[in-house]
Amino acid sequence: MTIDIAGAANLLRERDRFVILIHVYPDGDTIGGGFALCRALRAMGKQATVRCSTPIPPLYNFLTNVDEQSFEPQTVVTVDVADLTLLGEDATQFENKIDLCIDHHATNRLIGRYNLIDSMAAAACEIVYNLILELGVTMDQDIATCLYTGISTDTGCFKFANTTPETHQIAAETMKKGVPFGEINRLLFDTKSRPRIELERLALDGMEFHFDGRCALISITRAMREQTGADEGDLEGMTVLSRQVEGVLVGVTIREKLAGGYKISVRSHEPIDAAALCAKLGGGGHPRAAGCSIDSGTLAQAKQRLLSLCEQALTSSAML
Amino acid sequence: MTIDIAGAANLLRERDRFVILIHVYPDGDTIGGGFALCRALRAMGKQATVRCSTPIPPLYNFLTNVDEQSFEPQTVVTVDVADLTLLGEDATQFENKIDLCIDHHATNRLIGRYNLIDSMAAAACEIVYNLILELGVTMDQDIATCLYTGISTDTGCFKFANTTPETHQIAAETMKKGVPFGEINRLLFDTKSRPRIELERLALDGMEFHFDGRCALISITRAMREQTGADEGDLEGMTVLSRQVEGVLVGVTIREKLAGGYKISVRSHEPIDAAALCAKLGGGGHPRAAGCSIDSGTLAQAKQRLLSLCEQALTSSAML
Repeated sequence: MTIDIAGAANLLRERDRFVILIHVYPDGDTIGGGFALCRALRAMGKQATVRCSTPIPPLYNFLTNVDEQSFEPQTVVTVDVADLTLLGEDATQFENKIDLCIDHHATNRLIGRYNLIDSMAAAACEIVYNLILELGVTMDQDIATCLYTGISTDTGCFKFANTTPETHQIAAETMKKGVPFGEINRLLFDTKSRPRIELERLALDGMEFHFDGRCALISITRAMREQTGADEGDLEGMTVLSRQVEGVLVGVTIREKLAGGYKISVRSHEPIDAAALCAKLGGGGHPRAAGCSIDSGTLAQAKQRLLSLCEQALTSSAML
Repeated sequence: MTIDIAGAANLLRERDRFVILIHVYPDGDTIGGGFALCRALRAMGKQATVRCSTPIPPLYNFLTNVDEQSFEPQTVVTVDVADLTLLGEDATQFENKIDLCIDHHATNRLIGRYNLIDSMAAAACEIVYNLILELGVTMDQDIATCLYTGISTDTGCFKFANTTPETHQIAAETMKKGVPFGEINRLLFDTKSRPRIELERLALDGMEFHFDGRCALISITRAMREQTGADEGDLEGMTVLSRQVEGVLVGVTIREKLAGGYKISVRSHEPIDAAALCAKLGGGGHPRAAGCSIDSGTLAQAKQRLLSLCEQALTSSAML
């Protein structure tokens, strides 16, 4: 069942010995939200720990510095987890054992006995902020830093359309606690690994423009990943490279999978429907960001199929 | 003399027929602040126009759509203009004729008869926001869009350390008026011209790493500018490319000037002092961002001088 902020706060007050689960391949929002809640519960004199089934990237070490606590868990809480599968290896162990699920995804599967969901919140950290206020816990610099980082992560530093006036108001309140936000944003948004830089260099070298510059296409091959030493984390966000070029209405990124086949990401501007385009290859997504797979054939063949679909989409929307 | 918000509002109420001057090579803050004030004065039934001695980039057309008004000026106001020279060709004409100077630069030369300066404001638009509130003008969507754009421009979309809690509070208030902020931020921060993309590709191709990856060096030659068709606007922000690489403490960009010689930009992280480094070549700036010129010699010689200074700086700060 769903629960509101006051109800969730009462549940937390009544319980103790918390395990807070965050999603696999964790980002700033799930880590920030999980550790903010952990710190708040400890400030209330309770025992609490955060658990993730895949490693937390070292980038986030400034959020995770809490003492180890060892105890027999009584209460299970998830933060920013829309679906049981996002708990990774922990999923089977915690199925039907989640007491409170805190999330901002409209697609949340209501995996908790109680579910505190606000799909208007730009970040799970906005909900955790309101919950901590309701609990009456003093917002210290560490908690504020966790919450600011989550909000900045999920809004692209207040850039994306999911940002709301309340997002800014919460950012203002957390900043008053001394969050080193300039340094945090530099780490999150203005720092690239050497392999990532090398990969971008190769990707830009190979970027193709088609149909009067309305379509840009980037390929990321296995050879490029081997040559640069780029890992999965380094690949994140590469899909924005093609669409950011002025005049491009549809940007395609073809990534050769290590296991064979191709992962396709399509990013578009109005009026091109990326989801409709990907649906023709059995994929889907949002109107401006979608994906699909091509499991066989050569890279040249994959390119040709995608270019043909892009041409169709541009022509049928009278953009060509 | 300096004046406060209430005093500036009284001055504007008493006067009419305003010319609002914004700085040369205008950015989102001076344009947004100038046009927000122009719209507010017109909403008060006054005549007002914005003037700039260099063209306003077409990117900002969504802010500048006001009717032409022709009148004999009575009152001159500047927005975001720290120094008379920043008025370009208009400087001589308006010297000693500025009634009100509105600015957020700590270095403002107090060029107005009355000066409304707040160096804690992240953007001139924050001051204009407070002035419009004081004037009692209704904040409509157009005014809010101007102000949001200025604030987003000068804070790197709330990313930089100059952002304050009040910056976020003002952003929240303007957003409530229906500012299309997602689209604005995409235009400002996630759109690159084809020449710019080509130039980045060439710059990354030529990026050199030295001293265990602690120094990165980029050269932008005349040949690269000719090959890509990149103009001055396309060169803006190229200096961030080198410093954003993980592990780099000092990033150097050498730009071959069209008239001969080299323009050098140095960006650094603690503890490297970019200003001290540039001072050795007769330049200066801030600890983390500075510049200088080298007027003669070959590109290879310029590189060698800079690398030698970088090595000294890294060694003397025990980073090498």
